Amino acid sequence: MRIHLQNPVDDPLFDFSRAMWDAAVSRAPDTGDHIVTIGRAADDFAAAMTEAQALICDVSVINTQFPCLAPRLKLLFVTNAGLDRLAPFDWLPPGVILMNNRGTHAVKSGEFGIMAVLMLANRVPEMVTHQRAGRWHKLWGVVVTRQPITIVGLGSLGGAVARHAAAFGMAVTGVRANPSPHPHCVQVVGTDGLDGALPGTSFLVLACPLTDATRGLIDRRRLELLPEGAGVVNIGRGELIDQNALCDRLDAGQLSGAVLDVFDPEPIPPGHRLWTTRNLIISPHTAADDPATYNPISLDLFFENLCAWRDGRPLPNRYDIARGY
Amino acid sequence: MRIHLQNPVDDPLFDFSRAMWDAAVSRAPDTGDHIVTIGRAADDFAAAMTEAQALICDVSVINTQFPCLAPRLKLLFVTNAGLDRLAPFDWLPPGVILMNNRGTHAVKSGEFGIMAVLMLANRVPEMVTHQRAGRWHKLWGVVVTRQPITIVGLGSLGGAVARHAAAFGMAVTGVRANPSPHPHCVQVVGTDGLDGALPGTSFLVLACPLTDATRGLIDRRRLELLPEGAGVVNIGRGELIDQNALCDRLDAGQLSGAVLDVFDPEPIPPGHRLWTTRNLIISPHTAADDPATYNPISLDLFFENLCAWRDGRPLPNRYDIARGY
Repeated sequence: MRIHLQNPVDDPLFDFSRAMWDAAVSRAPDTGDHIVTIGRAADDFAAAMTEAQALICDVSVINTQFPCLAPRLKLLFVTNAGLDRLAPFDWLPPGVILMNNRGTHAVKSGEFGIMAVLMLANRVPEMVTHQRAGRWHKLWGVVVTRQPITIVGLGSLGGAVARHAAAFGMAVTGVRANPSPHPHCVQVVGTDGLDGALPGTSFLVLACPLTDATRGLIDRRRLELLPEGAGVVNIGRGELIDQNALCDRLDAGQLSGAVLDVFDPEPIPPGHRLWTTRNLIISPHTAADDPATYNPISLDLFFENLCAWRDGRPLPNRYDIARGY
Repeated sequence: MRIHLQNPVDDPLFDFSRAMWDAAVSRAPDTGDHIVTIGRAADDFAAAMTEAQALICDVSVINTQFPCLAPRLKLLFVTNAGLDRLAPFDWLPPGVILMNNRGTHAVKSGEFGIMAVLMLANRVPEMVTHQRAGRWHKLWGVVVTRQPITIVGLGSLGGAVARHAAAFGMAVTGVRANPSPHPHCVQVVGTDGLDGALPGTSFLVLACPLTDATRGLIDRRRLELLPEGAGVVNIGRGELIDQNALCDRLDAGQLSGAVLDVFDPEPIPPGHRLWTTRNLIISPHTAADDPATYNPISLDLFFENLCAWRDGRPLPNRYDIARGY
């Protein structure tokens, strides 16, 4: 198979290299012979796409290079998990199978997510607010064991957070469209059960994709359902939550804190109220990605999907445009 | 037995109540009959100590009430773990067995400790520095799995951090006076092995008591042995580390960050350089204590020691003045 990897123009930390490719091949020895090209410039892309049957690239490459001539393309593996920024998908050549990178972010996001929950339990956002003012002010946290936590989304991100939370002895309520049981949740409810879960939770973690069904899911009314002193974590997308309502509740001291990795818009503009909202920790959309492990895991996933495609099995990372993940 | 609990004058959040006592008795039913008094005022204390055979109180009570007349006192259970603030121990009536509260802080400190390590791995101290300046600046963290961590002190605090670190797949080096193996460490070295461990560690966690042997243990020379980008956590005592040297290395960007719960002095005075040192998170000496669980666990420990004393077994929490813990 002819495979092309197109690196983004301005993010060399996450470049695919020939050595990475060779290492991934050696971890997946039975995937057949391939001719592989790696490019960065627009010319590299155009030259490769006349022959390429598979393309591996990130959202920025698609936004700058598509639509394009790609007569032999069959498989498109996008190295991002949330593809909401590619909608509507009218740039996708007919018949091409689109995959996202769900799974790659699980380990890093899981660690970030449980860190954020522990930070809220230990009241770190409030401590940082006092520190900024040069105030020694004792604040007592809680042990997370037996604390109730609600995790919206139980895919690779939310599932990883749920696994850690359960290991710490927390009482995990999961929320997802299909409320089937989950090994690390004491209960799973559908979106229609969210209002019932919020008043009894100490920690709310948003880890679902952005879709028409989840945009604005945590609106002002739902934020007000959270008990006094609860904390919020968002590792999904900024648009999942009414950001202004969240800032209002933080400024009013009704929530103990928030740890956010995603925002609307990104980057947060200078002077935006988020920068000065108290008891808020801002992570600049980096929670999910460890440069040392990101590309190797991505390539392993690509090969897993390639084998499934070759064998006629369902592709684990196939992206469902209608569903939005 | 006549037992007196003296609450501190100014810390009602951590008061012992009759209900707490009754609940602890019900968890430890075979500990005999007791006459229990609970006081707060100096008069309560003086009245109770004419008869009390056991006293439960914190360091502040000892500092304000001792030396005193306590003719029948046999057991003194101090509800703090580090008793360095009570040295020299010339206030202790002869023949009284002194106990500290080691063990009570394990769960909360363990959670705080692994949180702090995850914060360093995710570069949260640096993010907070950028946030304070209103700067959107992407910083990529690492997955902690397989990362090397060095934990100084493997008592209840350090042991709890080691257990969590091992559960996250970290490579834990323990440092303690007696370098016997530890179930959650891949290696344990004596203090003489510390210099050898530091250059290969990404995270240094201080969790040992303050003694003559540990005062100033992490001096400027040892801080310079840490590799560029390493992070430091201190949940022991401020005097374990050369605080000025640590601030210098943080300000110079040679360490990625620090999460400190203990300082020299405490409270940190207004205008102290710690308040503005970059990439430093200040927790105001609250890491170890959860008001909801602190006293119940303390009383359970007291009963465990009481039974050991009654049965002539070694007391698990007996404090060794010469050793300093």
